[in-house]
Amino acid sequence: MTSQATQVVASLQAEVNKLRHELQTLKVDDHVPGVGDTIEVGSYLMERLVQLGCTQMFGVPGDFNLGFLDYIEDHPGIEWVGSCNELNAAYAADGYARVNEGSIGALTTTFGVGELSAINGIAGAFSEHVPVLHIVGVPSTSQQKNKPMLHHTLGDGRYDAYYKAAQQFTIAQASINNKDTAAAEIDRILTECVVLARPVYLMLPTDLVSERIPAKRLKTPLNRTPPENEPDVEAFVLDEIVKLVEQAEGDAIILVDACAIRHSVKEEVRELFKKTGFPVYAAPMGKTAVDETEDRYGGIYVGSISQPEIKEKVESAKLIISIGALKSDFNTGNFTYHIPISRTIELHSDHTRVQFAGFPGIGMKRLLPKLTARLHSFKEGADKLVVPKFGQPVPQDSDTTITHEWLWPRVGEFFKPKDVIVAETGTSSFGILDVKLPSGAVFVSQILWGSIGWTVGSTLGAAMAAKERGLNRTILFIGDGSMQLTVQELSVMIHHGLTPIIFLLNNSGYTIERFIHGMTRKYNDISNWKWTHLLGTLGGEEGKNCHSYIVKTREELSRLLDDPTFAAAGKIQLVEVMMPMHDAPRALKVQTELTGKSNRYSLTQQT
Amino acid sequence: MTSQATQVVASLQAEVNKLRHELQTLKVDDHVPGVGDTIEVGSYLMERLVQLGCTQMFGVPGDFNLGFLDYIEDHPGIEWVGSCNELNAAYAADGYARVNEGSIGALTTTFGVGELSAINGIAGAFSEHVPVLHIVGVPSTSQQKNKPMLHHTLGDGRYDAYYKAAQQFTIAQASINNKDTAAAEIDRILTECVVLARPVYLMLPTDLVSERIPAKRLKTPLNRTPPENEPDVEAFVLDEIVKLVEQAEGDAIILVDACAIRHSVKEEVRELFKKTGFPVYAAPMGKTAVDETEDRYGGIYVGSISQPEIKEKVESAKLIISIGALKSDFNTGNFTYHIPISRTIELHSDHTRVQFAGFPGIGMKRLLPKLTARLHSFKEGADKLVVPKFGQPVPQDSDTTITHEWLWPRVGEFFKPKDVIVAETGTSSFGILDVKLPSGAVFVSQILWGSIGWTVGSTLGAAMAAKERGLNRTILFIGDGSMQLTVQELSVMIHHGLTPIIFLLNNSGYTIERFIHGMTRKYNDISNWKWTHLLGTLGGEEGKNCHSYIVKTREELSRLLDDPTFAAAGKIQLVEVMMPMHDAPRALKVQTELTGKSNRYSLTQQT
Repeated sequence: MTSQATQVVASLQAEVNKLRHELQTLKVDDHVPGVGDTIEVGSYLMERLVQLGCTQMFGVPGDFNLGFLDYIEDHPGIEWVGSCNELNAAYAADGYARVNEGSIGALTTTFGVGELSAINGIAGAFSEHVPVLHIVGVPSTSQQKNKPMLHHTLGDGRYDAYYKAAQQFTIAQASINNKDTAAAEIDRILTECVVLARPVYLMLPTDLVSERIPAKRLKTPLNRTPPENEPDVEAFVLDEIVKLVEQAEGDAIILVDACAIRHSVKEEVRELFKKTGFPVYAAPMGKTAVDETEDRYGGIYVGSISQPEIKEKVESAKLIISIGALKSDFNTGNFTYHIPISRTIELHSDHTRVQFAGFPGIGMKRLLPKLTARLHSFKEGADKLVVPKFGQPVPQDSDTTITHEWLWPRVGEFFKPKDVIVAETGTSSFGILDVKLPSGAVFVSQILWGSIGWTVGSTLGAAMAAKERGLNRTILFIGDGSMQLTVQELSVMIHHGLTPIIFLLNNSGYTIERFIHGMTRKYNDISNWKWTHLLGTLGGEEGKNCHSYIVKTREELSRLLDDPTFAAAGKIQLVEVMMPMHDAPRALKVQTELTGKSNRYSLTQQT
Repeated sequence: MTSQATQVVASLQAEVNKLRHELQTLKVDDHVPGVGDTIEVGSYLMERLVQLGCTQMFGVPGDFNLGFLDYIEDHPGIEWVGSCNELNAAYAADGYARVNEGSIGALTTTFGVGELSAINGIAGAFSEHVPVLHIVGVPSTSQQKNKPMLHHTLGDGRYDAYYKAAQQFTIAQASINNKDTAAAEIDRILTECVVLARPVYLMLPTDLVSERIPAKRLKTPLNRTPPENEPDVEAFVLDEIVKLVEQAEGDAIILVDACAIRHSVKEEVRELFKKTGFPVYAAPMGKTAVDETEDRYGGIYVGSISQPEIKEKVESAKLIISIGALKSDFNTGNFTYHIPISRTIELHSDHTRVQFAGFPGIGMKRLLPKLTARLHSFKEGADKLVVPKFGQPVPQDSDTTITHEWLWPRVGEFFKPKDVIVAETGTSSFGILDVKLPSGAVFVSQILWGSIGWTVGSTLGAAMAAKERGLNRTILFIGDGSMQLTVQELSVMIHHGLTPIIFLLNNSGYTIERFIHGMTRKYNDISNWKWTHLLGTLGGEEGKNCHSYIVKTREELSRLLDDPTFAAAGKIQLVEVMMPMHDAPRALKVQTELTGKSNRYSLTQQT
């Protein structure tokens, strides 16, 4: 199939999925019983998820959730995705939520053993503002009261220990213990999840799953938007901002970050820079919040690590309108923003800062459209502000080795509109920063939480969401060290017929750690696997529903990238890319130097 | 090599290891500086571990622990075992601690992402009384004070969130924040770990690892034994017990359980039944606390699930001396002990119960030798009490299918003295209960916590401890569903030249869950892997340092078991055993029926 044909097929497939989805929603509405009718607690929860546009349930069976799994398996609008383990399931739910923007991700685990295995994934979703519902099948309400020494307990009767741990990493929790409050509790935490874009925790006891409750509430959709801002304060903030823009004589830039994506203001941001003409830049975590092919888009700003021209433009602007910032070390070039507070306006989901003044409760979702309306008069002047040309050419030297310097611009040419590009923390997440992604592309990475191995699970979820949303291919970049943490999830991708392209950068170990500390240490080595055998071992049939490649030179990789069958991504494909052990992208080298210094190892010990 | 030769080699190897170990200890003593001398915090911790007999450090590198890893890699007495992920590392430390009795297991992870991935493994060690030290490399003390938005943080400045979570699952915690208290804090939690046989948590900031502190404390070994019992209370308890044995006219039995192993009273228990002649039985979690070839050993008691003769003997005894009981559902046939409290004496690590009376603080380690001294006069009478012959013959019918009924007695014939036998929760842990294990064999299973996939990591740790202790082969039984959770750890076994035998029971999914609920449900299916390709893919060279087999009939499996090369376990071996999907061991069928009933699914829904 030609690349064009593939795109047509993909877009038709997306249309089919969309229509099916709409149909399902209608069906759901159909079988939602009228006032006075009842529904089981398990089904109630399913209906709410479908209403929110969440159609995949990740997780692992366990004896305290099996009754609930029946409702999942039987529901026409939800697909059960049995993960290989719970951490991977949490990662998948996170990846799904990121790509299925405006909806949430969901996973089901079992009491104790299951939920605790997932907790790192949940904490990551908390850290990075991702809405994930964690449903835990727990012992019956009477067992929770009498506290027998059941398996999966700590043996000391503390049935609330897991709940207490979950409180640290979720924005809201509910322990359903009464059918009369079940629906209200479910609605409460789902609303928090979607409005605050953070994970929530739900304990579902075995004896309540099948209890019947009134279905009436389902007629009222859940609120999904943040509340209106207090009008007086909002008006004051708008005036202040306009004043500052005037003082700056329109020399303002927009800097967009993670929370612009997570708190669903991409459209509002687009309106802002389209109507005002202000140049717009993105922090690493905000990559693809703005279409990188936009005229007014200038590239990635990451403090001292930025490309020189971008650094100069951002830091010399008289005013910076920062939208949804998450100023973590890896997202700011180790806290090297050279932007004084006196020149900064910060818009967040739940507060605004104008220079030194904070305005709690003034959220950007409501503020942004009003701001655009007030600022569009600056367009004529702003259009004259020069925006750097983002993107880097492929080096044309005669070296045959696949170096990072060559790799990233080269794969940049391979990307297509609407591709979902997942980059593992480390060489991949740093390497891809300077690559200009095509229109509609979605960048997925975990730059604040930075849990290695996360992308394998999240690619599973992202690929499912991409299919639903009619996006193009899902493409993963991951190192050999990271892949080993979560490798089994490839088997779930194969099982569900997903067709991601996986670039496995084989550089013999934990490269990011080497650059931080211990360049030649054995603890940064890993065991070398036969990577091209992996898909075939984990349930695939090489050449049939999967394909594996190894490339050792630039020419080999280029040839593969130019192969239309490969590019069409008709089956899951893994490309082992052989790279030198001690090579790294430019940005990573600088970042890790800074990190190593703050860790102070270098002061006291040889590396 | 013949099987005999292999044993000789193994025992010589063990001797070499032991001698090396002793030599190391001496060397350690040598290089422990005298009074007034100093040592780095990282080295101090290493020295303490070696003193406790802990010589393997499991874990995963992360930027907040790299400085500490230098000390591990450089220490002659500690081997760094880089795990594929942190959960597996925790499982490995747990398995290591179980087999390296009297010592502890240790793992090192990094702040947030690493430690949370391990937390289910730590909680399991808590639940099952396993001494594990969890060292977490954390940001520097100044970063902890200033709380920058570092990667691996929650983004909201809560640097104590992981500590709070860890408090739920560890018996003691220390956050080293001052070099002056570092040694005392390390000693405190190590003592709690080894004496209470529970996991402990240690935060090690990047800036303190290399700080020099006085070395003097190292001259005083850590206390490893519980305190003396209060003499008056202890004397009273002894009198009460002796009175009850007299009233029972010597018709007493001993029932030994998990904590007899974990709290190191196996030797004391042996003395007790040897000198008193009382019959001795074991709960599932107490299997191999008593050598199963002992004359006075009657087999496994597990309430209603027991073999009828064992059930009759235990439940009709006039007095039951229970030692180290952990009466969880799966350890008691779902709470079906038919033993009235009025006929029971319970000895625990930290308290004693005589009928209805509790004696807090009276621990079994100190009580048991005194009890033996007082009770040995009953021997003549007790010797006449009949003890059932434990063990079951291999069924001799003409069926060729490998059923559970046939499998377990058959592999029973394959076991050798001092084998370490690891059984995954589910069909394996239930199936092996009725098999009589050879002298010196060590049974490893996680019956209370029951986290599926646990055995893969714990086999790694167990095999390392077995090598150190001069035990024989490490043999794992695991289902296909469970293997998928933690499969990557096979690669670490290969990398470290370990040679376990792995019986992979391929029965197409989560069999224990099927028996609880959802026999034909899709959520209990899993993707089928090419199991015999697994070792070769994960770093092994088939036929060279690994060997994989598939057996479909009884004859094929028998032939393999009788093959001396296979039995010699000279390399890592994986045997895929094809079994029917809906077959299960007798004990599992009964247990899951009872569990399913308490979960109440069956009352409300079709399965």
